Amino acid sequence: MTRPRPRALSIAGSDPSGGAGIQADLKTFSALGVYGMTAITAITVQNTKGVSGIEAVSPAVVAAQIEAVASDIGVDAAKTGMLANAGIVKAVADAVRQARIGNLVVDPVSVSKHGHLLLERDALDGLRSQILPLALLVTPNLPEAEALCGLTVRTRDDMRRAAEAILALGATAVLVKGGHLAGGTAADLLVDPDGEEWLEAERIETPHTHGTGCTLSAAIAAHLAMGEDLRTSVRAGKRFVTGAIAHALAIGKGIGPVDQLWMSAMPDLR
Amino acid sequence: MTRPRPRALSIAGSDPSGGAGIQADLKTFSALGVYGMTAITAITVQNTKGVSGIEAVSPAVVAAQIEAVASDIGVDAAKTGMLANAGIVKAVADAVRQARIGNLVVDPVSVSKHGHLLLERDALDGLRSQILPLALLVTPNLPEAEALCGLTVRTRDDMRRAAEAILALGATAVLVKGGHLAGGTAADLLVDPDGEEWLEAERIETPHTHGTGCTLSAAIAAHLAMGEDLRTSVRAGKRFVTGAIAHALAIGKGIGPVDQLWMSAMPDLR
Repeated sequence: MTRPRPRALSIAGSDPSGGAGIQADLKTFSALGVYGMTAITAITVQNTKGVSGIEAVSPAVVAAQIEAVASDIGVDAAKTGMLANAGIVKAVADAVRQARIGNLVVDPVSVSKHGHLLLERDALDGLRSQILPLALLVTPNLPEAEALCGLTVRTRDDMRRAAEAILALGATAVLVKGGHLAGGTAADLLVDPDGEEWLEAERIETPHTHGTGCTLSAAIAAHLAMGEDLRTSVRAGKRFVTGAIAHALAIGKGIGPVDQLWMSAMPDLR
Repeated sequence: MTRPRPRALSIAGSDPSGGAGIQADLKTFSALGVYGMTAITAITVQNTKGVSGIEAVSPAVVAAQIEAVASDIGVDAAKTGMLANAGIVKAVADAVRQARIGNLVVDPVSVSKHGHLLLERDALDGLRSQILPLALLVTPNLPEAEALCGLTVRTRDDMRRAAEAILALGATAVLVKGGHLAGGTAADLLVDPDGEEWLEAERIETPHTHGTGCTLSAAIAAHLAMGEDLRTSVRAGKRFVTGAIAHALAIGKGIGPVDQLWMSAMPDLR
């Protein structure tokens, strides 16, 4: 008895250097045996040293990509990443609602690792009011949590307060990522309708963390697409990204990418 | 002793449905253990039923993507797919030349499986005069070979004549794909500086062939990136795509995609 290939959709920007964006998402989906699809929101020009250009896709074409794959192939789970501007935020919200995509993971990307703005400032309101209510899960890091809820988030108690404030915006669950916390562990706080759970992993000392957030949210979406429940998917996603960071690639002259292929049997190809 | 991960670049269009374009290329690179990068030339709106929209990326941004990854990460091999229009053809030629990408596989995509134009008619001259002289290998199917050399190509003898005419345009080698020939085998003709070689594979009866050409050229580029010679890479690429067609996915309501993940150990995920 064979079961059909799970199908996952990434709604995000393109990173030509292959470490983040829809490229990281497709690599993650494939590594986990999931059929990957995309709705590209923006073409960025970037490498390990930073972002040097952004060409946004027109909102109508972003929506049309979602509609084309949802109506024909079907979407078991989706994730959003870089949404670029307010027009795209609205187009994505409308298209996701129309396609009735229930398993939606929202990575509220706003700024790149090098400090480049990936979401125009006037689009934050739309992300909050139109996208978050559609989310099964939102996955902010500490600066993104601060931007979403308007609170300062520096401690574990702050993370709890931020999680409650973000859930009040309409998301079903939230994973506040504590990677920017001081201390030796990377502690993330998951709050869902069943309560709270702290996910701890040893902090890996590496400068090469490009694509971490994309890879985590894609891995969670992949596990949701397989039919796993939210908590199982979040734990599996965290394990996947922890391995990808541990095997990060020292390529390029700046912040190298995490390795989505780390689980594949390629010992001589590192 | 570990060797560095080979790095391959796809210069092509985006297929949201994930079966062709840069999506097929990234899946192929990953399946073969190669680090995948992209320079996106156009956002198409398509699914298994056809192409319903195209938004071309500006030529300067296409060139900037190539420059960003070549100057920082490096490119062991590249492939071109959909180049959309004359402005992009020129920008790609200039950027590839400047980046000194030697291992270039050119898939001269012009029309989709459903008959949609993926290269504007006035761009064919540029493909011929600016891109082909940079190619280590060109991989036309029969209609593409006809368009490139202006001859009718229906038989094996025609394929030989077409190959010579295409080599005269400046490519180092050419693989004329006979998948559209009548008969029980899929015979491709490789002509390189060492002479000619016919590659035969049993024809697989399936309606699901979306992404065949993208997957073949990406697999050849992946093997070139690993340091293999041209003939070895072409044979390996042909084996890879034959397996991908044999395991094609019956998803969507039209022409389903070939499966780039066919070699992965996922017997229950078909």
